[in-house]
Amino acid sequence: MELPDVFTRYRPAITQGLRDALTDSELPLYGMLRYHLGWQDEHGKPLEANSGKAVRPALCLFACEAVGGQWSTALPAAVAIELIHNFSLVHDDIQDGDTHRRHRATVWYLWGHSHGVNAGDAMNILGNLAMFGSDGAALPPQTALTASRILTKACADMIEGQVLDLSFEQRANIRVDDYLLMISKKTGALLAASFHMGAAIGTHEARTTSEMLEFGKELGLLFQVRDDMLGVWGKPEVTGKSAANDIHRRKKSLPVVHALEHAKGASRDRLLAIYKSESPLTEKDLSDVLTIFAEVGSARYCEELARQTAEASLRHIESVEMSLAAKRECAEMTRFLLEREY
Amino acid sequence: MELPDVFTRYRPAITQGLRDALTDSELPLYGMLRYHLGWQDEHGKPLEANSGKAVRPALCLFACEAVGGQWSTALPAAVAIELIHNFSLVHDDIQDGDTHRRHRATVWYLWGHSHGVNAGDAMNILGNLAMFGSDGAALPPQTALTASRILTKACADMIEGQVLDLSFEQRANIRVDDYLLMISKKTGALLAASFHMGAAIGTHEARTTSEMLEFGKELGLLFQVRDDMLGVWGKPEVTGKSAANDIHRRKKSLPVVHALEHAKGASRDRLLAIYKSESPLTEKDLSDVLTIFAEVGSARYCEELARQTAEASLRHIESVEMSLAAKRECAEMTRFLLEREY
Repeated sequence: MELPDVFTRYRPAITQGLRDALTDSELPLYGMLRYHLGWQDEHGKPLEANSGKAVRPALCLFACEAVGGQWSTALPAAVAIELIHNFSLVHDDIQDGDTHRRHRATVWYLWGHSHGVNAGDAMNILGNLAMFGSDGAALPPQTALTASRILTKACADMIEGQVLDLSFEQRANIRVDDYLLMISKKTGALLAASFHMGAAIGTHEARTTSEMLEFGKELGLLFQVRDDMLGVWGKPEVTGKSAANDIHRRKKSLPVVHALEHAKGASRDRLLAIYKSESPLTEKDLSDVLTIFAEVGSARYCEELARQTAEASLRHIESVEMSLAAKRECAEMTRFLLEREY
Repeated sequence: MELPDVFTRYRPAITQGLRDALTDSELPLYGMLRYHLGWQDEHGKPLEANSGKAVRPALCLFACEAVGGQWSTALPAAVAIELIHNFSLVHDDIQDGDTHRRHRATVWYLWGHSHGVNAGDAMNILGNLAMFGSDGAALPPQTALTASRILTKACADMIEGQVLDLSFEQRANIRVDDYLLMISKKTGALLAASFHMGAAIGTHEARTTSEMLEFGKELGLLFQVRDDMLGVWGKPEVTGKSAANDIHRRKKSLPVVHALEHAKGASRDRLLAIYKSESPLTEKDLSDVLTIFAEVGSARYCEELARQTAEASLRHIESVEMSLAAKRECAEMTRFLLEREY
C-alpha cells in the first residue's frame, strides 16, 4: 500500500528546518547529533541526506494546513517536535542497551554513555530553541507559548511513559489497560502533540484544535497497536526485520500482554517461563508462544482494537470544520496506519 | 564571613514554587525527583525540608528586584532555573560515576542508570514547564518567551561545557584559556542566565539587562575560580571536604591546569605522571603536587584572577541604573564570592 502524500510532501522544508536548527557549530557535540540524524558518518564525512521518516513534523504541518493555516508557519513547531523525538531515541538507546538503530551504530555505542546522555540532552534543548524560530520565522509570542506548552507537556508524558515501560520489564502481571496507558504516553503523547500544535498554530478555534488533538491520540494508539502486530506477525520481506522479531527480543508488546492476561494454567505458566528465561529463544519456544497467542485470540484482539481505534479517529474528523480534501487525507492516514505492512 | 541576605531571603517563596512545580503525582518518577531535591528518602518518607542552597533562583529574583521589578514576577523563571540546574546535577552524577552527593546516594546509584537518565530528563522538562507558570502566576507572553529563550540558550551552553569537560579528562594539554572557556559554559552560563532573566523580567531597558548579564558572567567565573581554590587549599574544617580534595580526585581544575601550562622539565613530567596514574595518591604525590603549584605560582595566579574578576564585575554594576541599596548588595555578593572559605 502506498505511503500517503502527506508523509512526503513537506520533507524538503523539514530537512532545511532541521539543518538550520543544528547550526554550523564545529563542536564535537553537534557532530554526534548530525551523525544520529544520518547526515554524516562518525568521522564527520557527509552522507547522502537521510533525515529518517520525519513523520511527526509532517503531521504537525499537515494539521496546521488542514485547519486553514499556512503550513509554513508551523515549521518551528515541526522542527522542534522532530528534535524532541530524536532526543528520546538517543536516550532510549542507552536505556535499552541497543547497539544499533536502522543498521547504524547508536551514539552511545560509538562515543560512550556519558556523551550519549549529553547528545540526547542537547537534542532536547535544541528542540526547545527551535520553537522560538530564527528571527524571520518566529511565531507570534502567544502562539509560540501555546505550542511550547503543548510540546513540553507531551514531553513530560513521554518520560512518564518511558518510566512505566522500564518498570514493565521487571513485571509479569502487566494488564492490557496498563499497557495501553503506557503507550498512550510513551508513543502517543508526541504524535498527538504534532496534531495539537499544528492545529493550535493554524486556528484559534478551540473545538477544532481539540478534535485534532483527539484525532492525533487515536492515530498514536493505532500506530503503536499496528507496530506491535507487525513485530509478531509482520512479513520479514516487507518489514525489513526478522520474523517474530518482538518475540525473539521478548518485548512485552500488546500480543503478549494480552495473552498473559487471558491465558490460563499450563499455557500461562509456559508463556511466563519463556518470557522470563534469558537464553536465546528456540524454535519450540517460538511455536509455543504463537500457539498460545492463537488459543487466546491475541491477533484477533489486536485487529479489533486497531479497527475500533481507526473508527474512533474518523469520528473526530467528521465533526471538524475542514475542507473535504483535508478530511480525505485524514481518512487516508487512518487507513494507512490500519493496513500498513511495514 | 556571613552569607549575604540575598541568598536566604527568598527561600520560602522558592521552596513553595519548587513544590508547586513538582505536582502531587504519585508516579515513581516524581518520587525520584523529590528524593534528589532532599524532600523525601528513597522510600518516599518525607524529610525535613532541605532544598539545597538554591543560589540561582535567589540571584534571579534579586536581579528582577534590583532593576526595579517586583521580585515575585520572576518566580516562574527562578523555579525553572533551579530545576534545570538539578537536571544537570542528576545527569552529571551519571557521567562522573558519583555515587554520593552532599552525603546522600545519587539517583542513578539507587535506581540505576536508565531511571537516572529519565529523572534528569524529567527535571529538565519540568523546568521548562515551570517557566509557563501556573495560571495565576504566568508571565506576559513576550516576557515568558524572552526568559525561555535566555534559559534555553544557557542550557545549550551548559551542555557544550559539559562535553568540553568530559573531553578534558582524556587530555593532558589543556591550556588555561580552554579551561576558562569550559567553565564559562558549564557553570557560568546558568549563573549568568539567572541575572539575565531576572533583569529582563524586571525591566525593558536593554542596557540595564545587558550589564546585569555581564555582572552575572563575572560572578559565575569568580564563583568557579574560588571553588577551584578551595578544592586545593580550602580548610577542611570549614569546607566540610577533605584537604586537597580536588588533588586526591585528580580533578583538572584551575590550579593544575595553570601548573601544567607553566611547569617545565622534571616538574611537568612529575605532575603529568601523578595525574595520569590511577592508583590512590600517596603523601609524597600530594606534597610534590603542592610544591610544583608553589614553584609556578598557581595560587598567586588564581588569587589574581579572582581579584580581577571581582573588579570587572563591579565595573558593570557602577554604570547600571539601580538603587544604591541594590548596588551595595551586588558588591556584597562579589565580596562574598571572592573571600568565602566554604
